[in-house]
Parts: sequence; C-alpha cells; structure tokens
Amino acid sequence: MSTRLFSYDELYAFSETIFRSIGCTADDARLAARVLLSADLRGVDSHGIARLSGYVRLWDAQRVKADAQVRVLHETPSTATVDGDSGLGLVVAPKAMQIAIDKAKQVGSGWVSVQNSNHFGIAGYHAIMALEHDMIGIALTNASPLVAPTFSVERLLGTNPICVAVPAGSEPPFVADMATTTAANGKLEILQRKNGVAPHGWIQDKEGAPATDPHELKAGGALLPLGGDREHGSHKGYALGAVVDILSAVLSGANYGPWVPPFPAYVPMPTGMPGKGIGHFFGALRVDAFRPAAEFKEHMDNWIRRFRSATPISGQERVLIPGDPERESETQRRTGGMPLLEPVVADLRFLSEKFSIPMPPGRA
Amino acid sequence: MSTRLFSYDELYAFSETIFRSIGCTADDARLAARVLLSADLRGVDSHGIARLSGYVRLWDAQRVKADAQVRVLHETPSTATVDGDSGLGLVVAPKAMQIAIDKAKQVGSGWVSVQNSNHFGIAGYHAIMALEHDMIGIALTNASPLVAPTFSVERLLGTNPICVAVPAGSEPPFVADMATTTAANGKLEILQRKNGVAPHGWIQDKEGAPATDPHELKAGGALLPLGGDREHGSHKGYALGAVVDILSAVLSGANYGPWVPPFPAYVPMPTGMPGKGIGHFFGALRVDAFRPAAEFKEHMDNWIRRFRSATPISGQERVLIPGDPERESETQRRTGGMPLLEPVVADLRFLSEKFSIPMPPGRA
Repeated sequence: MSTRLFSYDELYAFSETIFRSIGCTADDARLAARVLLSADLRGVDSHGIARLSGYVRLWDAQRVKADAQVRVLHETPSTATVDGDSGLGLVVAPKAMQIAIDKAKQVGSGWVSVQNSNHFGIAGYHAIMALEHDMIGIALTNASPLVAPTFSVERLLGTNPICVAVPAGSEPPFVADMATTTAANGKLEILQRKNGVAPHGWIQDKEGAPATDPHELKAGGALLPLGGDREHGSHKGYALGAVVDILSAVLSGANYGPWVPPFPAYVPMPTGMPGKGIGHFFGALRVDAFRPAAEFKEHMDNWIRRFRSATPISGQERVLIPGDPERESETQRRTGGMPLLEPVVADLRFLSEKFSIPMPPGRA
Repeated sequence: MSTRLFSYDELYAFSETIFRSIGCTADDARLAARVLLSADLRGVDSHGIARLSGYVRLWDAQRVKADAQVRVLHETPSTATVDGDSGLGLVVAPKAMQIAIDKAKQVGSGWVSVQNSNHFGIAGYHAIMALEHDMIGIALTNASPLVAPTFSVERLLGTNPICVAVPAGSEPPFVADMATTTAANGKLEILQRKNGVAPHGWIQDKEGAPATDPHELKAGGALLPLGGDREHGSHKGYALGAVVDILSAVLSGANYGPWVPPFPAYVPMPTGMPGKGIGHFFGALRVDAFRPAAEFKEHMDNWIRRFRSATPISGQERVLIPGDPERESETQRRTGGMPLLEPVVADLRFLSEKFSIPMPPGRA
C-alpha cells in the first residue's frame, strides 16, 4: 500500500487545529495533539493520527465532550478517583497522571483511577511524564472487548495495556509499554490489510478454536491473552488483562469487561453498562522515597548495561532494553517524518474538508 | 513416584519446631511455618515444605539469620525501604507487607521495597494479607537467574512472580499469582523427575535454541519469559520480569539480574554483587480510598460472575477466575491432607534426625 511522508510539525499543527475546531481550549488542543502524535513518533501507528477521525466521529456522536471538566471525585493523600466528564482520553489521562505525580511529590507515591473517559492514545506518553520528576510512572487502561479469557468463547477484555517507565542516569530510560495480549490489535490490522497469516496463539475463531486467518477476529473470533493457550500460560495474560480492567474500572466506577464502550462511533453501545465511560489507572512512585535518586539511577544504568551486553543468541544482534525500539523510531521520525498509509491520508482529507482546514501537504 | 499423606497440623507443628530449633522466636517460627505451608495448601508444592530443608541449609551456610531484626531504612507517608537483615523471607515478607498495609490505612496506599532478604515462599500469602482490610494486595519478588531475556543466551532474571489479590463481596476474592515465565520452575522439575517432554516455548538450550528436553535447564539452558518467543510476545514476559526485578531490588538496594543469590546453599554466590540479599516489593491499596468499599465489592462480584458464566470453549468445563484452582486445592488439602513425594519425606527425615525432633508419622 502506498504511503505519503508527513513531518511531525505539519501533523501536529493539523491535529491541534482539528481539536480546536471541535471545541477544545487552546491548551487542551495542544495537549491532545502532543499525546496523539507521540504514538506516531514511537512507531505505534495504530494509536496515532490514524485515530484522529475516530475521535472526531465520537465527538459527532456526542460520546466525547470537547470542553470536559476533569474533576476529583474522591481522594486521600496518596490516591484519587477522577471523573473524566466524557472528555478526550488524550486530555483526561495526562491531567490524571499529573495528579498522581503531584501526590507522589507530597507523600512518596500517587495513584489515580479514572472513570468516564475515552481512548487515551498510547499508555507510554502518560507513564513517561513521571520520568522528569525522577519517578517511576505507571499507566494502564481498559478498552473495548476483543480478547477471550482462557477457555472462553466470548470476548470479555480489551487489549488492556500496561506501561511502566523507569528513569535511569546516563542510559536512556526503561519503558515497557505492552498490550496484555500475544499480539497488539494493530499487528492484526496489518495482517488483515495484506491478507496474511497470523501465527498460532494470536487469535481464535468464533467457536474458540485456534485460528490463523486474521479476518476471523471480525467474524466473531477473539484476540488471545499473552501466552496464547493454557499450556503456554494464557491464564497469566488473562489475569494481567483482568488486573488492568479492575484497577482502571472497578476501582473508579467506569465500565469493565464486556461493557466497555467501543472506539468506533458506529458500533452500538453495550446494554446494561455498570459504570461510566472507559477507565484508566495511573501511578507515580518517587524514586527518592526509597533511596537517593542518584544512587538508584546509577544502579539502573548498571542494570541496563548488563542486560544490553548479554550474549545474544546466534543470528540476533543484541538483547534489547524495553523502550529501545520506540526510542529509535522517535529519533528517526522526528527528523525523517512519518509515513502514513493511503487510508489514513484519506481520513485526514475528510477532516480537512469537514472543518475547511488546509490539508497538510506531506511529500511522496 | 510414591507419596505419603500428611495432615496440615502435623506439618505445621514440625515446621514450627524446626524454625524454633534454628533460633527463630516463637512468633517468627509460627509465622514462617504458616507462610511456608500456605504453598502446600494452595497446591504450589515446589514452594512449600519441600523447601524446608533448603532454608535450614541456608541457615547452616550462614546465609540466613534466624534472629534477624527487620527495620525500616527510609520512609515517606506512603512508602518504605526495609532491610530484611538476612532473615528468612518467610518472616521478612509478611512484616514488610504489614508496613504497606499500615501505611495504606493512613494515606490510602502503602508501598514497601525490601533488600537483604531471602526466598519468601509464595507471593500469594503476602498479597492476600491485604484482603481482610478491604485492600488490594500486591506482592513481587526477584529470584536467582534461570530465565533468559528475549534474544539472550544468558540467564539474567528469576521467575520473578507477580501476585495481585482483590477483595470481592459474596464471591471469593480474585487472586492472580504467577511466575512471569511461560511455565513455573516447579513444572519443569516435575517433567525432569519423569523424564518428560516440555512444550515448545518453555525452555531453550545453552546456545539459546528452542528445546523440549527439561534437563536442558540444568545443562546451561534457560526458562523462557511468558510468551516463549518474540513472535508470541516473549519481550512482554521479559519486560514484566524486569519490572519485578527493578521494583524489588534496584529500588531497595538488593541484588538484581544475574547477581541474585541462589536458593541452594551449595551453589556459590555470584561475584561482584551490587546489593544485599534478594529483593521484594509489596503494595496495599485501600479500596475505599477510591470508592465506598461496599460499592467496589458489589461490582467485583458482578465482574467475577460475568467472567465465570462466560460461554466456555467446547470441551472445557468453565472459565476460571484467577485463584479458583488454588482455593479448590486449599479446601481439599486442609481436610484431606498433603501428599508428599518420597524425596520430600526423606528431607523431613533428615531434619528430624538433625534436630532430634520426632518425624511426623503421616499415612500411606
């Protein structure tokens, strides 16, 4: 499929203008554009500007409020429950993470569970916010049900990602950002576009039998929890996805399990929803609440260097540190630009016409 | 292999007396026996009384102090760093978890990182301590290196378990307790004893090639992170094991990665160790620091019932909730007793003779 190359700056300006056009404040529009595009920079194309039209469609369907007022419903010195007021997750999430960081400054750690939100982009953006404060950052979110628990025919969990970001000294930070499934939905979408074959352990068909046709997912099948099947530990991936769901939504009062609202605005809402919107969970842990920050970072450098210098298996270049591939993508794309697939460019053109905003030119 | 059946009470009395014999206080001996045997009750045979002689050998080798004084090195309102003073992990861990619980009572959550400890039994015991306080409990520990990160020939991580326990209302609690590897080491040991074949994705040989002979682990091979290989997400299992290592040891000042001391007393200590002992990490999160506890528990019941009643795949009885198998084991073994393999019985006989303590009779 053909792609067109766009600079970070032109996509940022375009996204910011779109968010302004639907009614976001100037500050919120900048924040939403920054969070959205951090996905493209880090190579998580499925969560970046490719979703911009999806957010607008949710706003069109009145499932997203552009002028949402994020507020604290309940708090203790180290915790808070936040109501996202049906806002863009791209705006609600960094505001909630900031509350966690502020609490960590005061009492060593901060933990915030969020209800009534929407898709928050990549978990990595929010967890990484903690790093400049010498804190460990944690970001979780639930998502609409695409994943079948071990032994289940039904899809009851989202790809429910976990991100943990840890500061280092002279080494780049450790950033683990992952779906709790064998493969992220974005990888399935790539296979669907090229009619490829999925490896065993990624999906099951609508009867719950192992499947390799990526289109089975849209025919009533399901993504599988990390592990793939029981013999390979899928009950662990299921448990991790469940923990994300519980911390994000049962704790906050959001929807959980099969009741999480879908991202595509054309998909009807589930019936009998037990909460509000989708849920997130954020944590910030001040490193010097445990040991002096300089000492911690020196040992993190030592940890990172030891793992990076491990003897690689023949045929592999080296052992990676979580966050290495995304950081390399960011370095490359900040200067080299972002390649967008034709359907994504068409979506931007749709938005450009809808709001009478000039289309970013890009280049072939 | 033949087994002999022992009651909980006779194994508890025997273990308690052994811990008294090596110099534990009466309170610590009771605590250690209770934590140790919770593994046998919950069906995690590899972490229970089968390890009693191992703890005694560590004490013999002066790697474990029976009269350790657990103390707080540093703290904030919601965090603490604890020095285990080379004590039995079975005693250090519940004391550290209690500190986390006490902090959660005060400020909503408590987070404790522990250095200078030893093997703490099953993570589940410690996390479950939070439940009676209407708290979510978290317990992590690092362990001696048996696991190769993705693309690594070398073993740099332990099986580094994660346990998260969540209270419910009228349903039993949700308790996810899992190694961050495809298969726990205990499962490999079972295959080794019967010269079985390991499924693909459990282990690699000493060159890093996929292996199915369980003996490869002792011939320089390694356990694999949850996921098994890169295509099935082993980089996620590696990242999870790494997070456990960092929170347990880099944060506390314990040893991490390849420097974690081995459990068997006859294995030499690593050289160039960067910290003290092994590390743990505990968390307690007060449910009513987010929403009223009764409301939370009602929604947890709803969550549990929805998942348990999901349509199962043909041939499977039902979808399990994390903690179901362990709870069923506990119900059965509390009354029906614990079957111990002949080598474990021989170890108890060794201890009985060493300390001139009557051997528990058991029955055939």
